[in-house]
Amino acid sequence: MLQEDVILTVNAIAATSATDPLVRTTIERRDVGPRDVLIEIRYAGICHSDIHTVRGEWGEVAYPLTVGHEIVGQVTEVGSEVTKFSAGDRVGVGCMVNSCRECDNCRAGQEQYCTNGNVGTYASVDRDGTITQGGYSTHVVVDQDFVLRVPESIPYQAAAPLLCAGITTYSPLAHWNAGPGKKVAVVGMGGLGHMAVKIAVAMGAEVTVLSQTLSKKDDGLRFGAEHYYATSDPATFEALANTFDLIVNTVSAPVDLAAYLRLLRLDGTLVSVGAPPEPLPVPVFALFGARRSFAGSSIGGIAETQQMLDFCAERGIAPEVEMISADQVNEAYERVLKSDVRYRFVIDVDTLR
Amino acid sequence: MLQEDVILTVNAIAATSATDPLVRTTIERRDVGPRDVLIEIRYAGICHSDIHTVRGEWGEVAYPLTVGHEIVGQVTEVGSEVTKFSAGDRVGVGCMVNSCRECDNCRAGQEQYCTNGNVGTYASVDRDGTITQGGYSTHVVVDQDFVLRVPESIPYQAAAPLLCAGITTYSPLAHWNAGPGKKVAVVGMGGLGHMAVKIAVAMGAEVTVLSQTLSKKDDGLRFGAEHYYATSDPATFEALANTFDLIVNTVSAPVDLAAYLRLLRLDGTLVSVGAPPEPLPVPVFALFGARRSFAGSSIGGIAETQQMLDFCAERGIAPEVEMISADQVNEAYERVLKSDVRYRFVIDVDTLR
Repeated sequence: MLQEDVILTVNAIAATSATDPLVRTTIERRDVGPRDVLIEIRYAGICHSDIHTVRGEWGEVAYPLTVGHEIVGQVTEVGSEVTKFSAGDRVGVGCMVNSCRECDNCRAGQEQYCTNGNVGTYASVDRDGTITQGGYSTHVVVDQDFVLRVPESIPYQAAAPLLCAGITTYSPLAHWNAGPGKKVAVVGMGGLGHMAVKIAVAMGAEVTVLSQTLSKKDDGLRFGAEHYYATSDPATFEALANTFDLIVNTVSAPVDLAAYLRLLRLDGTLVSVGAPPEPLPVPVFALFGARRSFAGSSIGGIAETQQMLDFCAERGIAPEVEMISADQVNEAYERVLKSDVRYRFVIDVDTLR
Repeated sequence: MLQEDVILTVNAIAATSATDPLVRTTIERRDVGPRDVLIEIRYAGICHSDIHTVRGEWGEVAYPLTVGHEIVGQVTEVGSEVTKFSAGDRVGVGCMVNSCRECDNCRAGQEQYCTNGNVGTYASVDRDGTITQGGYSTHVVVDQDFVLRVPESIPYQAAAPLLCAGITTYSPLAHWNAGPGKKVAVVGMGGLGHMAVKIAVAMGAEVTVLSQTLSKKDDGLRFGAEHYYATSDPATFEALANTFDLIVNTVSAPVDLAAYLRLLRLDGTLVSVGAPPEPLPVPVFALFGARRSFAGSSIGGIAETQQMLDFCAERGIAPEVEMISADQVNEAYERVLKSDVRYRFVIDVDTLR
């Protein structure tokens, strides 16, 4: 057992600059406070956001930086006031590790939209003034209110991506009522997109995949999509005009919004869950044409994340993952950038010990 | 009484080019078909869209062209199958005079979003292949299904602007549930904006006006707004961050969407009812920050327009108008472009006879 006031030094992988490869290193974790949980990390997913962040594409960051916000592992110690978890529990941590807890949004259980800014799992200023460090490491210390319970029926290796890719797609699908009788399109068949398909199908919606090519069509249909179109074919946009109630755009590169908006039927919504840093041109006339909306959605609240995990457990939904060792992270980054992964890399953190 | 097959030649004001002043002329109206209503026009409102259209700013048009889609008058003749109206009825015509009636949107009573394109009151191809001509004229022939009943309790001169400015603001306010407990901002205090304020107040919302300057503040408060801010003052955008459930943007010139989107609270919607022809840059991160939406809304369906007229009659709401004669239309256009009108010009069509 750890003593109070002992700072834990743990193995990790860190970026040392925007351009150099990630390297093995050690980082420090704060001592386990009264409301904290110490988690021995077993698996950590690789999210496209990790790459944007370490490469400085979303703003300046302080190096060295350890990223990773799709974390699963087991509780090894809890603080004196912790009531929700105990040693041995199988838990997860997603994209945030704290929030103000006082603003309207926090009180509404929407901590992801904390008006004072939530504390991201990495590259954020933590309550003790340090910069948060993410999940590509052997241990993490997190306030119990930002720890999720991972049901045993979700395969351990596959659970990690649910903490970002899962909740990021579940939340808008639930918010905009994907379900029976609704036509939902998913733009992009990557880490987020393939989860969006599985979740929307499980919710009962009629799902169409809009992917650049048909190369992943078999997978899409296997995941339950009823239709699969290539967006490189202009005929797709003719054929599907005025069709969808909801389009979930998982592509973080700029897309031709005008083309996608016209695929929405009356009162339809195009919601982006990936975002390019630059503003996207929106043709207002395309919105007018059928009272369409363009919206953004960011992960989900803590309670909703638990709901998503329980939903996935109940419906037997899990991400498709490719396991890698700690030494393969740089190579994995290059493959993510080439969309050469089906569908999420997960680091076996035992290879970091 | 008119004979069948007699085409009516009526006085009108028309644009002969994108740059010349409008001139007095005559235009032809089709014969009154079995389901048509002949209306003797008494008043016609001047909408900013009229100016955009005659000046070719929204695309090429065929000259000569008579515009005007805020029309009130009285029925003087009805076709043999007309059941809804009879001679002497006080009626109105808005922005559209027909639609396909077969698509999903038409069948849902949302003819304004007809997927085959509704027939605009002017500058559209009518069912007989001619180009529709608008309300700056003494008479118009319209299918009964696109004619509205104007309650007697709405002052005759003030009724016309309800047919565009009224329904254009009523529809999104109703759709996005403006009402008690909701904070609604109205951007722009022109013809549409002042109606948005009056209607949102009548619906029970807490209304804030966001206008370039404070020059119309007294009016805004008189119309029932609780707050009035100048958008030329950057402090406005600090003070009102994360405040509104709904922002109705009535400004058709490009606005800084990023600044306005940040004024929306969680799940808030910014709906534009005026549109610049060029796409507007939307900062996706501003949408993400609070699951905000950017939407467009176009006038309203016929049933909803009748609902709006009845609502205004019941609540004693009417536009503020400045009456002009037919010979003052060109001057009025210049004043509209300088926002020098409180709040809508209405042509006294008796001056055209």
